Amino acid sequence: MRPDRTAELALLLEVAGTPKPGNVDRHRDLADLRFEHFLAGAVGARDGLEMAADGAPVGPAFEHAIEGMAEQDGGNTQFGALLVLVPLVRAARDGDVPTRSAATAVVEGTTVADAAAFYCAFDHVDVFVGDPPADMEPLDVRRGSDAIPVLEERGLTLYDVMDRSVPGDDVAREWVRGFERSFAAAKRLADAEGSILDRAAAVFLSLLAERPDTLVAARHGKDVAAEVTDRASMLHERDALEVGRPAIEEFADELVDRGINPGTTADLTAAGLFIALERETVEI
Amino acid sequence: MRPDRTAELALLLEVAGTPKPGNVDRHRDLADLRFEHFLAGAVGARDGLEMAADGAPVGPAFEHAIEGMAEQDGGNTQFGALLVLVPLVRAARDGDVPTRSAATAVVEGTTVADAAAFYCAFDHVDVFVGDPPADMEPLDVRRGSDAIPVLEERGLTLYDVMDRSVPGDDVAREWVRGFERSFAAAKRLADAEGSILDRAAAVFLSLLAERPDTLVAARHGKDVAAEVTDRASMLHERDALEVGRPAIEEFADELVDRGINPGTTADLTAAGLFIALERETVEI
Repeated sequence: MRPDRTAELALLLEVAGTPKPGNVDRHRDLADLRFEHFLAGAVGARDGLEMAADGAPVGPAFEHAIEGMAEQDGGNTQFGALLVLVPLVRAARDGDVPTRSAATAVVEGTTVADAAAFYCAFDHVDVFVGDPPADMEPLDVRRGSDAIPVLEERGLTLYDVMDRSVPGDDVAREWVRGFERSFAAAKRLADAEGSILDRAAAVFLSLLAERPDTLVAARHGKDVAAEVTDRASMLHERDALEVGRPAIEEFADELVDRGINPGTTADLTAAGLFIALERETVEI
Repeated sequence: MRPDRTAELALLLEVAGTPKPGNVDRHRDLADLRFEHFLAGAVGARDGLEMAADGAPVGPAFEHAIEGMAEQDGGNTQFGALLVLVPLVRAARDGDVPTRSAATAVVEGTTVADAAAFYCAFDHVDVFVGDPPADMEPLDVRRGSDAIPVLEERGLTLYDVMDRSVPGDDVAREWVRGFERSFAAAKRLADAEGSILDRAAAVFLSLLAERPDTLVAARHGKDVAAEVTDRASMLHERDALEVGRPAIEEFADELVDRGINPGTTADLTAAGLFIALERETVEI
């Protein structure tokens, strides 16, 4: 399967994996963000992912994926997941198995034009982000394409933008740390047991147990993010989906009720699914 | 959205619709046929659907869709759905809204070569079909590509093959009756209430209540198919997903337990979803 197809499938498997505490999954919807929005978002992202597989630059491919993803009424479904998937797809084109070094070469090769396209992507959909540091204020992504002149003046590539976003954004962290957690997630998916959807849920929990989710931290503060990680960690230790499954289901419902959605952790789960499928270390 | 994209989304929405008594849905798996197999089947069918949207003949486009669909371990997931979707996609290319007459023109224009490709599709995946009538025995689809010489000798087009399959196959019936029930399903989807997944489930039940499912009849006999339709009809009358939802959920579980899968009804639901999405009479 071409890597753009695999990436679309990874998005579908990610949202279907259950229980994924706090997020839309096979058995849970949020009030205004439902399962079908993720299905439509994944199909909508196809053309942008295909551009990346055909060798288009990361920024325009990403922007096009977001434009297509946003053609449904749920709003932002897979922005972060696509930001990590697009360079991975680009690294896997020509039939190469994706590697950390190839993905790093892709992101390090991004340009100012890629950064401009990234800012344009924010014109297509509302994405929740926290306030930037003071010196980055003119480059607040919420400005969308209005920020492009400053971006060009400062000569920042998309890699530079990600580098400056790292504290507080674990998708950006993947870009500058060689997709460390994405590849770790892929390994865990391969080592896990059960169906691919069970594995996706187990690996989601393991990622959530490991580091506070940066979207939760931005939305609800560091204390809430830390609490969620502590709870996930306890549940993960209790052998996760074997003996602890009812407790995880309860935790999932509680987080949905509280409106706490660990979206970054879902993004990394999707990236891990992509890598594992490309490496054929998991099967469907 | 290009019609092949819409068709893929229709396949995803169909399997996600719940409760769909007897079938894999958002909340139910069968023993060896699970939700993720349908997700992978829909993504795998992409290239064949794209061929149809680009104007390829129906037979080769269908065969290619099946070949891709079959690249997962669940076996047949969407054979019937693709058999009804491929001509609809072909009829909707060039941005035309799909109509019954355009779809009929497509199927009536099929050739012996289309029929040969259709038989080749059976080489890629095991499909449950009943025994053919005696004069069609050399053309039993289970012979796959081995039947092609007889097919060519008799000069049968794919439309002719469908025409001869009609008693006992309600997908074939769509081909020769101007996609009557597919378009009726689309209208019901537009008129229904609730989310698109709720509508898909309600329309599935209405189709099941209307005519015995031909896959159920082939597998379990006419009496079982009639019983299922009678039960669906009673539940449908009880205002379906409003007051009767728990009873429908119970019926869904019972049919799964008994191994009774109204697959043809699901195929028509997918076709209805495609038409309604193309006509923009439903939204996501």
